[in-house]
Amino acid sequence: MSDAARLWLGIDVGGTKVEALLADQRHEARGRAVQETDSASPERVVASIDRAARQALGQAGATLEQVAAVGVGAPGHVDPATGVVRLAVNLNIHEFPLGEALAAAFRRPVFLDNDVRMATVGGYWRLKQRQALNNMLFVSIGTGIAAGLILNGRLYRGERGVAGEVGHMVVEANGRRCQCGNWGCLEAMAAGPAIAEQARTAVARGEESALVALGEGVTAQDVYQAAQAGDRLALAVADRAGHYLGRALQNLVMTLDVSKILLGGGVSRAGQAFLQPILREWENQRRHSVLAEAMLNPAILELVPPDYPAGPWGAVIVAQQRLEDSW
Amino acid sequence: MSDAARLWLGIDVGGTKVEALLADQRHEARGRAVQETDSASPERVVASIDRAARQALGQAGATLEQVAAVGVGAPGHVDPATGVVRLAVNLNIHEFPLGEALAAAFRRPVFLDNDVRMATVGGYWRLKQRQALNNMLFVSIGTGIAAGLILNGRLYRGERGVAGEVGHMVVEANGRRCQCGNWGCLEAMAAGPAIAEQARTAVARGEESALVALGEGVTAQDVYQAAQAGDRLALAVADRAGHYLGRALQNLVMTLDVSKILLGGGVSRAGQAFLQPILREWENQRRHSVLAEAMLNPAILELVPPDYPAGPWGAVIVAQQRLEDSW
Repeated sequence: MSDAARLWLGIDVGGTKVEALLADQRHEARGRAVQETDSASPERVVASIDRAARQALGQAGATLEQVAAVGVGAPGHVDPATGVVRLAVNLNIHEFPLGEALAAAFRRPVFLDNDVRMATVGGYWRLKQRQALNNMLFVSIGTGIAAGLILNGRLYRGERGVAGEVGHMVVEANGRRCQCGNWGCLEAMAAGPAIAEQARTAVARGEESALVALGEGVTAQDVYQAAQAGDRLALAVADRAGHYLGRALQNLVMTLDVSKILLGGGVSRAGQAFLQPILREWENQRRHSVLAEAMLNPAILELVPPDYPAGPWGAVIVAQQRLEDSW
Repeated sequence: MSDAARLWLGIDVGGTKVEALLADQRHEARGRAVQETDSASPERVVASIDRAARQALGQAGATLEQVAAVGVGAPGHVDPATGVVRLAVNLNIHEFPLGEALAAAFRRPVFLDNDVRMATVGGYWRLKQRQALNNMLFVSIGTGIAAGLILNGRLYRGERGVAGEVGHMVVEANGRRCQCGNWGCLEAMAAGPAIAEQARTAVARGEESALVALGEGVTAQDVYQAAQAGDRLALAVADRAGHYLGRALQNLVMTLDVSKILLGGGVSRAGQAFLQPILREWENQRRHSVLAEAMLNPAILELVPPDYPAGPWGAVIVAQQRLEDSW
């Protein structure tokens, strides 16, 4: 690696967009770009990533030759050792060597991992700038719900590499059917589609709400916006989601004694309208239980700032660490 | 340390009995002793431990001078760094430097930790003799429910040292009140006292059962014994406990992707009558969900053999490791 090769690319590949970040050795952002994801084929996905990367480089007037390594976070089941994407429904990919394809396109070392893990590293790295901490969770609430775990200062993967499936903790014995086939999984009760469906169902029952005007197309984002404006139906739906999320996060704190849980993902971008119902659930627990009072410090919960690209930053950090390890 | 000082004492201090194990360098047991715990005062607890230790030494014809270090597991809130027992209700101890008192009695290095953590290390050490594994849980089901976690091959303590409070995962929104003040904690639904109370309540309602003859004094052990004999009421109570335990263990597997969960503690000694209802809950999940089918391998669950002293063995291993670290 030449001395000039001191830039790092971090890329987050989502179902709708690819986000690229170019950072230098001092961890300053030198370029950021967003491109739409073309998921018509794996090759089109590669081309979308390539476009985002080159746009970020262009912003900094930099070239690929100056890039030491590239980190890439992709959704779904990803093998970090081989760079193979096993299954990514959002990207329409099944068993494709995305890492290899990108290494060929960039002629640079490429390190692939699951997108939630990358965002976890990005979130951890940011928190560590301001406080010492060894144990934290990143919980992504979007179309699905999944977590990344930092335990004893390291990314924790589990025995088979599938740790963090917290969206499939059962939180309601007689709850909605989940995509996994089970009933009452956290994801089926509190992820984006569940929130939207609960609102639609209430509207269909004829309940009064500003959401009625939106018809069948109501989204989780609409629900939280209406809740923020005081809409009673929307507030009830948001409270219910907060109740289940609060319970699941409580279980995680009791088990893992983490001092921070970062909340990210599309649904969390609703901000306080999303966070406050979770905090109310915790407050309710704390009123009754001395243990809950000791364990469920509201300061544990923190939203990822909407302008902080946790995924791309994590990909930068992981690329740096893994390149060092591979020397 | 002289060459002769190659024996290790591992001691488990319970509310009713103290169990001591003397092991040699090749990890062979050289002496085992059990003494009643006299918890009238902290000094009496120290004397009970001393009696058990000397009895185990006596069996081997060994002396304290041959002991390199002593490991001690104590219930409740224990500070491993200082050897202070903060609070152990069962031992009637509040803020007592048990480690220091034992070091003075034995004139040997003494390493103290929580009893569930010691048993976790003992269980892990035994499993590692037969299989490679880095991630496992030990769940103790007795008067209360708590877990010890081995993650990435190390004992995981959490940010404040209180990881493993899985007995206070809420598993039933409208469940029984827990000692912690909350409702529906796993411990309030499936620990020994909860099982006994459910049986007593059913008996008081006039349901037919062999347990009726036992009156108010029925214990969890009685319930599992009756269940083993086919008693319908006892089977229903055991099933209900298994349902909640199965759900909680499922949540832990989804989150931590561990390949083994050892089940220990007094209630688990009921053996198959205790284990089978948990496996039925898992089987039920597996029938409906592809994810559950992939994750909830029944081989994950394993009972601690009733004749294996996991606590004392863990105390031996911890004493060895911590003495090495302190050199």
